[in-house]
Amino acid sequence: MTRIYIQEVAPRDGLQNEDVFVETEDKIAFINRLGKLGLSKIEVTAFVSPKAVHNLKDAEFVMQNINRNPDVTYSALVPNLKGAKRAAESNVDEINLLVSASNTHNLKNVGRTTENTFNGFKEIISFLNDKDIQISGAIGTSFGCPFQGRISYNRVLSIIEKYADLGVTHITLADTTGMATPKQVYELCTKITERWDELTVTLHFHNTRGMGLANVLAGIQTGITHFDASLGGIGGCPFAPEATGNISTEDLVHMLEFMDFETNVHLDELIADAKYLEQLLGHEVPGQVMKAGKITDLYKA
Amino acid sequence: MTRIYIQEVAPRDGLQNEDVFVETEDKIAFINRLGKLGLSKIEVTAFVSPKAVHNLKDAEFVMQNINRNPDVTYSALVPNLKGAKRAAESNVDEINLLVSASNTHNLKNVGRTTENTFNGFKEIISFLNDKDIQISGAIGTSFGCPFQGRISYNRVLSIIEKYADLGVTHITLADTTGMATPKQVYELCTKITERWDELTVTLHFHNTRGMGLANVLAGIQTGITHFDASLGGIGGCPFAPEATGNISTEDLVHMLEFMDFETNVHLDELIADAKYLEQLLGHEVPGQVMKAGKITDLYKA
Repeated sequence: MTRIYIQEVAPRDGLQNEDVFVETEDKIAFINRLGKLGLSKIEVTAFVSPKAVHNLKDAEFVMQNINRNPDVTYSALVPNLKGAKRAAESNVDEINLLVSASNTHNLKNVGRTTENTFNGFKEIISFLNDKDIQISGAIGTSFGCPFQGRISYNRVLSIIEKYADLGVTHITLADTTGMATPKQVYELCTKITERWDELTVTLHFHNTRGMGLANVLAGIQTGITHFDASLGGIGGCPFAPEATGNISTEDLVHMLEFMDFETNVHLDELIADAKYLEQLLGHEVPGQVMKAGKITDLYKA
Repeated sequence: MTRIYIQEVAPRDGLQNEDVFVETEDKIAFINRLGKLGLSKIEVTAFVSPKAVHNLKDAEFVMQNINRNPDVTYSALVPNLKGAKRAAESNVDEINLLVSASNTHNLKNVGRTTENTFNGFKEIISFLNDKDIQISGAIGTSFGCPFQGRISYNRVLSIIEKYADLGVTHITLADTTGMATPKQVYELCTKITERWDELTVTLHFHNTRGMGLANVLAGIQTGITHFDASLGGIGGCPFAPEATGNISTEDLVHMLEFMDFETNVHLDELIADAKYLEQLLGHEVPGQVMKAGKITDLYKA
């Protein structure tokens, strides 16, 4: 059985996009629940400006006060050296760097060119040099940009190259606004796995246009085994407010488990937690299995 | 480029499941719009008891008064000889028979065993013998039954065999309550295409648990080229009232076109019609591309 690693992004990617701040103690309780479910990584928070991202203003406190399961990598998004220092002081397992493949999107997102962003990465990586913190490099808009449109395979490969030059061997290809097709995923990931065999590649899909789970399978067909997902499918992009967001963790695990992949994730508890999250947020979330039940949940005739 | 045939089921499978009756003239106008979009088949209605299915009580009038595009097969679901006679008098192109692979589901659905259902098919087929009407045989719960659970491949193969014995060469495998996984689709369809090469197989998926489009791609990987879908993703099963229904026609065409398959369907008009349908029904529908836009719909930076 192929082992697939499920990485939860709801506490950061999901909650960041909510209209309402989730109380710090609720956030910690939520992450503590997630820590027991067999997920291999949890993106806990982002060490960004509290003014820019109000919802994650409690980054230090959350990171310092969650219960740590030694089998889980507790990760945080970091945009600059200041964030890296805050993250290191908060004892993160992994720092997640992010640059957009699309220069236009990068300028919009962080006000810098992709080149300047990479210059910033150098000082972060230098600072982390003597620390036991894993570095992961994410590439936003890897499959398409809402301004520029489709992103060429060569553009993505060249950004991976830049990361590799800096010694970053954990790469995440993020489909920031849900523009990837399974064909594109298959083709791009084939090029990556053919060119580098020392990289750990994560795919981060959104289900904006219904292709999220199909994209995961296309990735698995190229040998990729690490996937981000968000409990209840929360998160999403501001460009399509009505559209659904990240692929849902419980829908992903449900599909993979019933296709005989091994995720090691407790599906029933994951579904229960998606329902708990819905209560916590006070609104419906996009997850489907939490509404329809598992395919093994039968009715009496 | 591989040609994929898109078959629209919203007028029957979709509208049947709506709480409110759509006025006959609106229904006809809707089908007339659909007839111009490059769809290869439209399931127009069902010739069932008007008491049992109030929403389709206008079957004759609708079938007799729609504009016919000669490139489109206008099909209708027929449960018995009486329905077949009504359908034949209304000039249908195709009669769609339906039996459930699950005996329990069949008893619940039509009050007969699968064996008795096939006995009824014999008289329908005999009646149609001298008529220029195509016969299609659908198999409900082909991938799973909400009462019995998973359906064995052999059970489905044996029902196809029964249809083939009656001379039915158009077969639809329907995932009535959205229980299929891509692995299961791939395995079952491989067995079918290996055993019969004279059958035209249609796959009919629901997106109940988010796997709808992934299931389509698994089917295509076995060589299947005919797919049912419902505009806006309407339809669905009464067992999961909160869950989404059929796969959405515009989401399906959107994915396939951007994967370089040839559907011949006008995507922009399909999306416009999904929005029109939403107005007609007076409630939100599950389609995703109609909310998020196509992957080529860009924003100004």
